[in-house]
Amino acid sequence: MKKIWLCLALLSGCNAAPERTLASALPAATPAPSASAPAPKAPESGGIGSRVFVVERETESLGVYDLSSRTYGAKRIEGLGNMRHATMTFSPDLRYGYVATRSGKLSRIDLATVTRERDVEVSKNSIDIAISQDGRYVATAEYQPGGLTVLDAETLDVVKRLPADGEKGGKPLQSRVTGVVDAPGNRFVCVLIEGAEIWVVDVSGKEPRIERRVKTSTDEPYDAMITPDGRYYVVGHMGSEHVSVLDLEKPDSGVKEVSLRDPAKKFDKGAPVKLPHMASWAVAGDRVFVPLVGEPRMVVLNRKTWAFEKSVPVRGHPVYSVAAPTGKEIWVSFSGEKDDAFLQVIDVETLAIKRSIEVGGRVYHLDFTPRGSHVLVSANRDNKLVLVDANSYAIVDEENVHSPSGVFGVWRAFRIGL
Amino acid sequence: MKKIWLCLALLSGCNAAPERTLASALPAATPAPSASAPAPKAPESGGIGSRVFVVERETESLGVYDLSSRTYGAKRIEGLGNMRHATMTFSPDLRYGYVATRSGKLSRIDLATVTRERDVEVSKNSIDIAISQDGRYVATAEYQPGGLTVLDAETLDVVKRLPADGEKGGKPLQSRVTGVVDAPGNRFVCVLIEGAEIWVVDVSGKEPRIERRVKTSTDEPYDAMITPDGRYYVVGHMGSEHVSVLDLEKPDSGVKEVSLRDPAKKFDKGAPVKLPHMASWAVAGDRVFVPLVGEPRMVVLNRKTWAFEKSVPVRGHPVYSVAAPTGKEIWVSFSGEKDDAFLQVIDVETLAIKRSIEVGGRVYHLDFTPRGSHVLVSANRDNKLVLVDANSYAIVDEENVHSPSGVFGVWRAFRIGL
Repeated sequence: MKKIWLCLALLSGCNAAPERTLASALPAATPAPSASAPAPKAPESGGIGSRVFVVERETESLGVYDLSSRTYGAKRIEGLGNMRHATMTFSPDLRYGYVATRSGKLSRIDLATVTRERDVEVSKNSIDIAISQDGRYVATAEYQPGGLTVLDAETLDVVKRLPADGEKGGKPLQSRVTGVVDAPGNRFVCVLIEGAEIWVVDVSGKEPRIERRVKTSTDEPYDAMITPDGRYYVVGHMGSEHVSVLDLEKPDSGVKEVSLRDPAKKFDKGAPVKLPHMASWAVAGDRVFVPLVGEPRMVVLNRKTWAFEKSVPVRGHPVYSVAAPTGKEIWVSFSGEKDDAFLQVIDVETLAIKRSIEVGGRVYHLDFTPRGSHVLVSANRDNKLVLVDANSYAIVDEENVHSPSGVFGVWRAFRIGL
Repeated sequence: MKKIWLCLALLSGCNAAPERTLASALPAATPAPSASAPAPKAPESGGIGSRVFVVERETESLGVYDLSSRTYGAKRIEGLGNMRHATMTFSPDLRYGYVATRSGKLSRIDLATVTRERDVEVSKNSIDIAISQDGRYVATAEYQPGGLTVLDAETLDVVKRLPADGEKGGKPLQSRVTGVVDAPGNRFVCVLIEGAEIWVVDVSGKEPRIERRVKTSTDEPYDAMITPDGRYYVVGHMGSEHVSVLDLEKPDSGVKEVSLRDPAKKFDKGAPVKLPHMASWAVAGDRVFVPLVGEPRMVVLNRKTWAFEKSVPVRGHPVYSVAAPTGKEIWVSFSGEKDDAFLQVIDVETLAIKRSIEVGGRVYHLDFTPRGSHVLVSANRDNKLVLVDANSYAIVDEENVHSPSGVFGVWRAFRIGL
């Protein structure tokens, strides 16, 4: 278990060099554009639609960037718990944001007032969170005690605990659960790490129930994602060259094993395959773009057949890739000090690298604004949040943020699987 | 001009039978599920994300449906002006909704309080509205005086009037303008009816400017749409079997003429081609679905080549078609008393009709909730708004609404071209 945990930490950049202080990290020669700006407006002076929550991991906090006024930090939410790998999800009515933590605490944020409105101890260690499409239920995936917890989104009462009890080699085993997402039909889908099993959980009836259990083909699933159309649930396996793909339209067919090896390349044969967070896969048009952490290339798969199409060489080991809402471009971040301040832009049609952009050290997360005009980037080592104009590729705003990690805009409320 | 106007009215169902009163229109034998519900909660008790604005055309009003509480009409906004064909657009920060009217009045709705917060006389007759991707500008397409008006989205001051001055047969002519949408690169795109010209307007600089004028290949454009990826601007022409498609990535190539004729069918040769509102085209996967008002079939085009792929026979003359967010289904409405109470559901992969649903007389508009769980439908003759579960196809809510027309959820703020 520890091994896996360490690998996960490595993959998402937890093996960071010791943090420099905010002051020493910010290069004095390049003042942030906002440095001379007047005191920031309160974020609630903008609208709910322009709120972007930024995980400040070291301080167990969320800061708020207001896209309209381009100001950061007028309001912060503190004491949230251990925020490693923390993601946020938003209620479809845009009243609330929810964040689950490695401390097991689930907090609910009032989006209008930008305050923590309620919290609850769900487990000892939660890794992931999702909200049902009808907005009634929040599900948290637990490492400890391993299982899926379904809560009432309004009261935060636990509606149902689904412990991941099983056995391995004749011994009872409670599996860790991860990769929980919402799926069409008012369902949740998640995966059991030790159990090597996908669960489809139906929350459309009176009580949440495990509708289906599907064995993954290989062991040690470590994360999963769902395609933006809600059709395919894709599971990564530790140290494996395969991923498991479940077609939620045809769950009886079981998972399909998909290889990420490039048949034309010799260098990667036998090399250890390391996978980043599955959420970093990008789907655009008929293609799926997969960052392959251990090698300086992106893998391009066919979205319908999941067949290997091509490798795209990139400047370093890719970590995150995000598709533009136009489907025209994929933006990629990298690991390693030599590369991790850069983004590369891949043209989806030609697969050519059309641009490199230096944004700031150790990019942890990036996302497009919903209509694709800008890209938000957290540069963890340089302690800043960067706003890039997606048309000109110019940096149009920088804000000082202490150890930023995940960046979550409220528009996630309106997307499948986020 | 009168001829065109009448055709447009015909196409969108303005040639309606005399309105029955609300009481007589609602069948006594089938009480709406909400009939025995307690007094509706105020819509502002829900969140901004669950607000759906419904055009009540006959009373020049907007009503509000709250998706969370499934209640209608706790707040209404009246005196908006002539709401024929009125569409709504929403600011990216979700502070405001904007509605332009045939009376030339533009109104701004505060989304938090659900009140008309400001209005301004823009023209004598506005037909369409859009908001720039950066949220700074609203553009209205004017019939009279013909042109495009760019307003400051905050102050509602006119920033720039772009009159559609031209000439025809040596005589000066001011063209009506329609089909305005936002497009990538902080642009607006619109089309001149008499001018037969597409304008690409750049609002990313200090002042809005017409960046490009592209002649359409045939005369009498009457409406236009942009594909959800923001790439193709598609213009319909009165009485023509062709549409003009402008690839905004390659505007120098000019428009491409695309035929809607079915080469395998004889019956439609020479038949008058009538087109519905272009906004009713549905894009899913690699296909574009086009309702052909004058014939009982949907046309399926290839999204990339725009080549004709197939005709799909449907139960009546299709009017609106909407793609599910999953891309799995297309939902279609119809004109004519025999068919207009029904929706048909087309499977995108097999192109088979997989379901027919009777929702209520004279369906005017329909749209999916953002993650695809439900479909909102306005049934104008039966004076009701209907909520359909998109998984079970069951009607799960009905609300009494007087002469409902367009149905607009705030999630449109986060979509290209809406």
